[in-house]
Amino acid sequence: MAGYPQNPSGYNYGAPPPSQQYYSAPYGVAPPPYGQHQQLPYTHVASPYGAPSPSPSYGAPSSSPFAALLPSTFPPGTDPNVIACFQMADLDGSGAIDDNELQRSLSAYNQSFSIRTVRLLMYLFTNTNTRKIGPKEFTQVFYSLQNWRGNFEKFDRDRSGRIDASELREALLSLGFSVSPFVLDLLVLKFDKTGGMNKAIEYDHFIECCLIVKGLTEKFKEKDTTYSGYATFSYEAFMLTVLPLLIA
Amino acid sequence: MAGYPQNPSGYNYGAPPPSQQYYSAPYGVAPPPYGQHQQLPYTHVASPYGAPSPSPSYGAPSSSPFAALLPSTFPPGTDPNVIACFQMADLDGSGAIDDNELQRSLSAYNQSFSIRTVRLLMYLFTNTNTRKIGPKEFTQVFYSLQNWRGNFEKFDRDRSGRIDASELREALLSLGFSVSPFVLDLLVLKFDKTGGMNKAIEYDHFIECCLIVKGLTEKFKEKDTTYSGYATFSYEAFMLTVLPLLIA
Repeated sequence: MAGYPQNPSGYNYGAPPPSQQYYSAPYGVAPPPYGQHQQLPYTHVASPYGAPSPSPSYGAPSSSPFAALLPSTFPPGTDPNVIACFQMADLDGSGAIDDNELQRSLSAYNQSFSIRTVRLLMYLFTNTNTRKIGPKEFTQVFYSLQNWRGNFEKFDRDRSGRIDASELREALLSLGFSVSPFVLDLLVLKFDKTGGMNKAIEYDHFIECCLIVKGLTEKFKEKDTTYSGYATFSYEAFMLTVLPLLIA
Repeated sequence: MAGYPQNPSGYNYGAPPPSQQYYSAPYGVAPPPYGQHQQLPYTHVASPYGAPSPSPSYGAPSSSPFAALLPSTFPPGTDPNVIACFQMADLDGSGAIDDNELQRSLSAYNQSFSIRTVRLLMYLFTNTNTRKIGPKEFTQVFYSLQNWRGNFEKFDRDRSGRIDASELREALLSLGFSVSPFVLDLLVLKFDKTGGMNKAIEYDHFIECCLIVKGLTEKFKEKDTTYSGYATFSYEAFMLTVLPLLIA
């Protein structure tokens, strides 16, 4: 159980959230109805995106029932950097970014992202397997990646470009996800590019870990309506919950 | 709902199993304790492998408690074809086949298998992410693939090398899995190599569909101990159930 010194059992369910964390509703998503002091068995109360909340005007276009019929647009006040990044990524000028365009953009600057990671990212921010994102989803992806990169750098204390299971645990915790050592070991075992020698993962796979943990936790929470830490699925619901992630 | 003419709702839960199917316990796995006439909401009573049962002597080496300490071996009476295939695949003569060796072997003869499909195959037949299989697991893989190929050819009636959602449904049903049109559509949408034009999948992706449906159904059944069609997971159990499949 080395690597989990703060908790000999290695399992941090029910630990109090870091004091700087609070409910936020990025991108117009309503927070779940947990009481402020209620402890969740599987997540902290932080926003699952962990991203800074955009301005209140952000969610405005969705308030009209016609909004769903129109392609998403950047709301007034969007950071010009985000718009510039979107336009650079949208190589064919279609107004939407597909999986190959997003992979090309993210893989610049000495960093690689597999098409699988990119598709998982797109699935989780659109909840469909269409593999296209518009300005609205791009903005969410932008802020989430910015936040996740900050977390990675914070916990990669020796600047090795890698974080180990214990640092991954701290990073996920600060994003609002409390996962067990078994889950962490599975993730690190899978994503260690040295075949288990380093027992550590690099940035691209850290992002994939964040996506997998975020995706599964959110799917589970949808079914755990009483926040008991248990969820019941029909066979059909189980298949339709897990399949889109498996085939993203 | 075209393509599901036998059942307008499109959902075949509870349909009687095809008469030629019966419980078998391939590879020494005990059948689940369903009553012979009990209808399962999510699978037929056929063996999930669908493979012919090997001779009773097959499981013998496992009967000693020391068996787990030794590498698996071919039991007496194993088809020489299986042993020859194993030896051809085991390029480094290590006595075990790794993911690259298995991919190379399966991808011969004008057929390709992605490393992801191969790893999913290895995970499902070892229940670990070690990515090595010995003679025992290879024999299971061999007979399952033989059986799945037979099913694919049976339902690919026009010999196009592709099967559509309706044929996939029939093929999965004859393997013992009854999945809904929504699940079938998701699978075909994902695996159609023409981006949705053909609405059909080729052999390598048919195998991936079989693996995914088999893997998820078996995981679900482990938790559905009363065979009610519903299963309750703790958050931890949910993560440990789904993660190995996601990261295989």
